[in-house]
Amino acid sequence: MEETKESLKAKIKIQGEKVRTLKAQNADPNLVATEVAALLELQNLQKKQASLTGEESTVKGKNKFTLKTPKGTRDYNEKEMAVRENVFSTIISVFKKHGAVTIDTPVFELKEILAGKYGEDSKLIYDLEDQGGEKCSLRYDLTVPFARFLAINGTQYQNIKRYQIAKVYRRDQPAMTKGRLREFYQCDFDVAGVFDPMIADSEVVKIMCECLDALEIGKYTVKINHRKILDGIFQICGVPDEKIRPISSAVDKLDKLPWEEVKREMTEEKNLNPDIADRIGEYVKLKGGRELLEQLLQMQELTANKNAKSGLDDMALLFNYLEIFDYYTGVIYEAVTEQSRPPKLDGTQVNQNSKDFDYESTVGVGSIAAGGRYDNLVGMFASNKKGNIPCVGASIGVERVLSILLQKIELDRVKANEVEVYVIAVADGLLEDRMKICSELWNAGIKAEFMYKNKPKLQAQFSVCDRDQIPFAVIIGRDELNRGVVRIKDMRSKEQGEGGGTSVKRDEMITELKKRLEKQK
Amino acid sequence: MEETKESLKAKIKIQGEKVRTLKAQNADPNLVATEVAALLELQNLQKKQASLTGEESTVKGKNKFTLKTPKGTRDYNEKEMAVRENVFSTIISVFKKHGAVTIDTPVFELKEILAGKYGEDSKLIYDLEDQGGEKCSLRYDLTVPFARFLAINGTQYQNIKRYQIAKVYRRDQPAMTKGRLREFYQCDFDVAGVFDPMIADSEVVKIMCECLDALEIGKYTVKINHRKILDGIFQICGVPDEKIRPISSAVDKLDKLPWEEVKREMTEEKNLNPDIADRIGEYVKLKGGRELLEQLLQMQELTANKNAKSGLDDMALLFNYLEIFDYYTGVIYEAVTEQSRPPKLDGTQVNQNSKDFDYESTVGVGSIAAGGRYDNLVGMFASNKKGNIPCVGASIGVERVLSILLQKIELDRVKANEVEVYVIAVADGLLEDRMKICSELWNAGIKAEFMYKNKPKLQAQFSVCDRDQIPFAVIIGRDELNRGVVRIKDMRSKEQGEGGGTSVKRDEMITELKKRLEKQK
Repeated sequence: MEETKESLKAKIKIQGEKVRTLKAQNADPNLVATEVAALLELQNLQKKQASLTGEESTVKGKNKFTLKTPKGTRDYNEKEMAVRENVFSTIISVFKKHGAVTIDTPVFELKEILAGKYGEDSKLIYDLEDQGGEKCSLRYDLTVPFARFLAINGTQYQNIKRYQIAKVYRRDQPAMTKGRLREFYQCDFDVAGVFDPMIADSEVVKIMCECLDALEIGKYTVKINHRKILDGIFQICGVPDEKIRPISSAVDKLDKLPWEEVKREMTEEKNLNPDIADRIGEYVKLKGGRELLEQLLQMQELTANKNAKSGLDDMALLFNYLEIFDYYTGVIYEAVTEQSRPPKLDGTQVNQNSKDFDYESTVGVGSIAAGGRYDNLVGMFASNKKGNIPCVGASIGVERVLSILLQKIELDRVKANEVEVYVIAVADGLLEDRMKICSELWNAGIKAEFMYKNKPKLQAQFSVCDRDQIPFAVIIGRDELNRGVVRIKDMRSKEQGEGGGTSVKRDEMITELKKRLEKQK
Repeated sequence: MEETKESLKAKIKIQGEKVRTLKAQNADPNLVATEVAALLELQNLQKKQASLTGEESTVKGKNKFTLKTPKGTRDYNEKEMAVRENVFSTIISVFKKHGAVTIDTPVFELKEILAGKYGEDSKLIYDLEDQGGEKCSLRYDLTVPFARFLAINGTQYQNIKRYQIAKVYRRDQPAMTKGRLREFYQCDFDVAGVFDPMIADSEVVKIMCECLDALEIGKYTVKINHRKILDGIFQICGVPDEKIRPISSAVDKLDKLPWEEVKREMTEEKNLNPDIADRIGEYVKLKGGRELLEQLLQMQELTANKNAKSGLDDMALLFNYLEIFDYYTGVIYEAVTEQSRPPKLDGTQVNQNSKDFDYESTVGVGSIAAGGRYDNLVGMFASNKKGNIPCVGASIGVERVLSILLQKIELDRVKANEVEVYVIAVADGLLEDRMKICSELWNAGIKAEFMYKNKPKLQAQFSVCDRDQIPFAVIIGRDELNRGVVRIKDMRSKEQGEGGGTSVKRDEMITELKKRLEKQK
């Protein structure tokens, strides 16, 4: 419906007042930005109408553009960054414990490197404008660039354990409140190389578990499956060869959809014989741990199938290795965390060992980590078979982990800076003395600050200590300086006001502070 | 000159052989990539000619695309990353000592946010393709996004000390060997807020110096100037108001060009009266520290000029503060490091406090850090004057610092992984026992690895210790396991072969290893 000039003007007025009110209330800047964006959209519409009717736009002034980040992207403030860096360093220390190194690849790749790697999701790839030269696209994940890296550097990397934590880009419909953005971090660990079966795979599972344990995200279950078992089941049930991939992709949806939906897709969309679908249904409903594996290994029809047998053997080996690593490979009952459980989850899910957990769109946070083998990806870049390098790896869903952790944390109370000592003057400003003392602290490796004012108010200095949760203050006054002493005060103690603290000789200040800082570690 | 079909074919043959030879020699992958790119370029040319003449292209096969990173970008392998991360963490710990926090902004911004901020360099901005929606560009530096962040979040950030180390993008002519790339890191520290004069400025200089000291890049000089002094000098010399900016930009080039060149630009290109140019020349030749400042403050014609006086007063204050921070503000003689000195450098340079050190194109590495005030940038985004926040900051030229450091380091000898212990079997493979021991080490927080083979050769296991510079091995044999012992061997010791090391009880292994690892810290 076309806006009339008057209704638009009225809307702009209302929206303008909304923005002013929010700003006056010091509202959440992201909220303000959203409302400002809406206002500017209305104003642009007005401008457009005006230009269509030959009128001069009423939007003037130097600040004509929308002050916001691009759709699906956001800034992270210092407190969010402190939480994020804590998560990253936790994960990285696990990766390093297992001997991993990191590499870096460009944020954009040649467009043709990414082409054909993401199926119909390729439409979500960001392309760079053709400004002369090569056609490039922003990376969509870290796996394809890593495979490209291996294909180029293959002679040096017949094997490598590498991790990479970096941003990737997808022109998907963003859902900011659910933490689904167009720019987000991926956190990958992969082992490339030819090894004896399932050894690297089992370490990847262990690493994934160690990360999740270290992040203290609560209980979780690792679901393991094997593509070959599924392929074998399809063959046994009588799925025609040409339908194995489409039917497989339908079964992959069992994580999000009930069996009835999946069956409907198989039979109605993909024209599978309903009897065959029912037979598949019997298999994919099976769920369990070691004991299920033993049971499956007893089933003649399965072990007679080459694919199924090979998959089951791999699984048995993997379970052995996981038990050596002290993981219980028992029955899965109900350990999917509340946060990650999608609604209407029935008992029939089968997780594939795909790295595609980011594509999921459940209402819960979904998988928090996923992984698997991709033995042929490097080969897609290699000029000959020898150039292929099999890989196995996992990806920690750091954005999801963060959204779980942020539910537990009071962000306002996060200490973003690491300042240990604030240098305060009780009177006269004493700027140069504060600078001198701060400089001594810095040179001794102590994290310190002072107020950038000639004559700061005492209360203002105390407020900074409160706001920034600075544990200690060095307090100086004219009289104390003359006597060659300073006062060290524990700012978290109950003593209020400018009094209190311990007088120490100026040349014992560093030693005393170091002692106190050491003690609280 | 048009290639004939035959000459092109011959060239392709030669280039193909070159590539094969390099690959056979396991040559530097970057070199191989360059030569492969050249080959593919020739092949594309051939393809193009063929399509023009209606012939079928002779380039076939599945691998039709160029396997390389986009022009001006590159991968960083694990050793380069280890050096880079070491540099970053050194810098970050200095920033944190001064109370800095970090924020994060998206890699791309709305195009209009960047527009008009970089003058004629705007043509170097990477745009994203218009795939429907907003027009976006990759960030060109970290300063404009930070200013945009402050303009949005201004109510919360009347002051902030923030650092950001992140990649920026410039479609410049790359000079890979000089380390000038299209994707590169910037490392910024900025203090935003209204404070008393020159206090934050002096801390920024101190931080810059602390970073350079901590990085051990050798001797360096910090050159300090004040835009207002220069503006005052121009007024005193009689530069007409409308020529102050163009003449100022000519003087900025004194860092790279001899005075004669700069004078020629002023008089011939910018039509400045040669007498005025000569008068400017007398001033800009002045060079020195504190004593020059005192001398300038005695010069009537300077102190009578409002701009010059204000600039000189600021400088006096800054020098006071720097001396409190124990920096010697004396005469500058010749401390520009060999690496950073551009050729034909004469004694007449005047450095501006601009953040533009990245634009320089000297043959030396140029400035390794630069900074200054940008008091009006945030205001460009703000809707009113109150929204402006003055800023002062510095940028460490991390890419240049790295290229200096890499000249000193033997990259091959950098230990990229942090593995402390390798678990080795002397016979029979003993895979499950190796896994079990490794798992114990991991659970105790020890960085450990084992070989992903059922029956690895002893020599192969020793080779990994050598290659990865792993300090300790835990060596197991069937016999030792039966006796409940393992052998711990210092792999850096002179003892060769499988013998040697210390036998310890299995349940004392962790304690013994921790003791040894602690000792070598």
